Amino acid sequence: MSLQMNQSLSVDCAVFGFDGRSLKVLLVERRYCDSAARLDRLKLPGAMILENETLPAAASRVLAEATGLREIYLKQMEIFSDPDRVRGEELEWINRYHGIRTERVVTVGYYALVKLDARVIAYTDDKGAQWVEVEAIQRLAMDHKQILSAALTHLCREMLQSPVAFELLPRKFTIRELQNLYAAVLGIEIDNRNFRKKILGSGFLAPTGEYEQGVAHKPALYYMFDKAAYKRAVKAKLRLGFINNWRY
Amino acid sequence: MSLQMNQSLSVDCAVFGFDGRSLKVLLVERRYCDSAARLDRLKLPGAMILENETLPAAASRVLAEATGLREIYLKQMEIFSDPDRVRGEELEWINRYHGIRTERVVTVGYYALVKLDARVIAYTDDKGAQWVEVEAIQRLAMDHKQILSAALTHLCREMLQSPVAFELLPRKFTIRELQNLYAAVLGIEIDNRNFRKKILGSGFLAPTGEYEQGVAHKPALYYMFDKAAYKRAVKAKLRLGFINNWRY
Repeated sequence: MSLQMNQSLSVDCAVFGFDGRSLKVLLVERRYCDSAARLDRLKLPGAMILENETLPAAASRVLAEATGLREIYLKQMEIFSDPDRVRGEELEWINRYHGIRTERVVTVGYYALVKLDARVIAYTDDKGAQWVEVEAIQRLAMDHKQILSAALTHLCREMLQSPVAFELLPRKFTIRELQNLYAAVLGIEIDNRNFRKKILGSGFLAPTGEYEQGVAHKPALYYMFDKAAYKRAVKAKLRLGFINNWRY
Repeated sequence: MSLQMNQSLSVDCAVFGFDGRSLKVLLVERRYCDSAARLDRLKLPGAMILENETLPAAASRVLAEATGLREIYLKQMEIFSDPDRVRGEELEWINRYHGIRTERVVTVGYYALVKLDARVIAYTDDKGAQWVEVEAIQRLAMDHKQILSAALTHLCREMLQSPVAFELLPRKFTIRELQNLYAAVLGIEIDNRNFRKKILGSGFLAPTGEYEQGVAHKPALYYMFDKAAYKRAVKAKLRLGFINNWRY
């Protein structure tokens, strides 16, 4: 085997949003695809790195372009370095699109969590991007389905280990919305009563005193995430001594 | 800014070992350095990726070449993508050494944990590599000091969250050795009695019945890591419900 020459480095980003019922991901249509009509048209937002740009900077740029947002939850996950991940027509499309002659593209996968409010949706609509239900996605361009699956796995793991779910929820939410989010991401059914008990028992949810309005069922109370209480708990746990933190 | 052309992708690996008292890292001398005598000579083992090779495969190759070992603890940590991480004479050395003309090298940092036994030391001695006390290292080639620091931070974090310390210890070890290891990696002093109590209280150490031999002080009992007990505890914790796993 010889040294890899003429390679490129890109970032691809799975931007997740939650509409109260199902988990969605932001997809964009690739351009200049006419001459390769057999290729899948939908892809994750991504870009090649520029000169003088780090990978995190490239990911932030992609995210800002795709969502109009900065300062949102963005995390690097895996590197996709399979030499065959883009080959043939897919590689030709990349070379044509960028006007380059690369022989291999290694991409770094990121995932981002977005509060799916009217402003974000207006922005992405305007850009011609789509929020697609993750569960309904069968195929994507290149290996983006695989990148999406990896991002989902990372999100699952992260949601089990830290209160990252609240990045996907509005500031005020019902317990039911939080439960729906966990059920959607983990792909499991969750018992209402147990979930309620456990999540309220955590001490990290603060009731707002406000209730849902104009709903057919009994209006649910809105809660907020109590970040300060969570931080205090983290500190208290750390004081217990490092050996107790073993992830078991 | 324009698209990055003529870039290379490499892996660099911080291979940690522990001699019972201090934490060491494997350093190699770079070759073809005569014409650039001002450059630091010692570096972490690393390599450019080859055609048809993934990044993890490249890291395993580097590790096998450097230590003679396969199947050891190897973990990807950060990507170092600062456009200025190798510039000027350092970049010239890379181009001369590899016979290429790259304008930028992005490297993926890995760290590995090795049991520092006679066989490994014989192998690395033979290769002209050195096990250097991490604390004593002031400078390294390129940005390798920074990569080493990042690896140490990741190792610290990992040792607080999982029983990865045992990868660095012989199969049978004394509590004192385990304590020395934690103290060396975390860079702190640890109270003997508290450590003993906590670590034995974890239920993950099994006494072997064997004692140190030929020591001046009272011979200490050798323990082994009880992986099965640890795995049972992980499972039991998972059964408690996902929300309890939040890292606090």
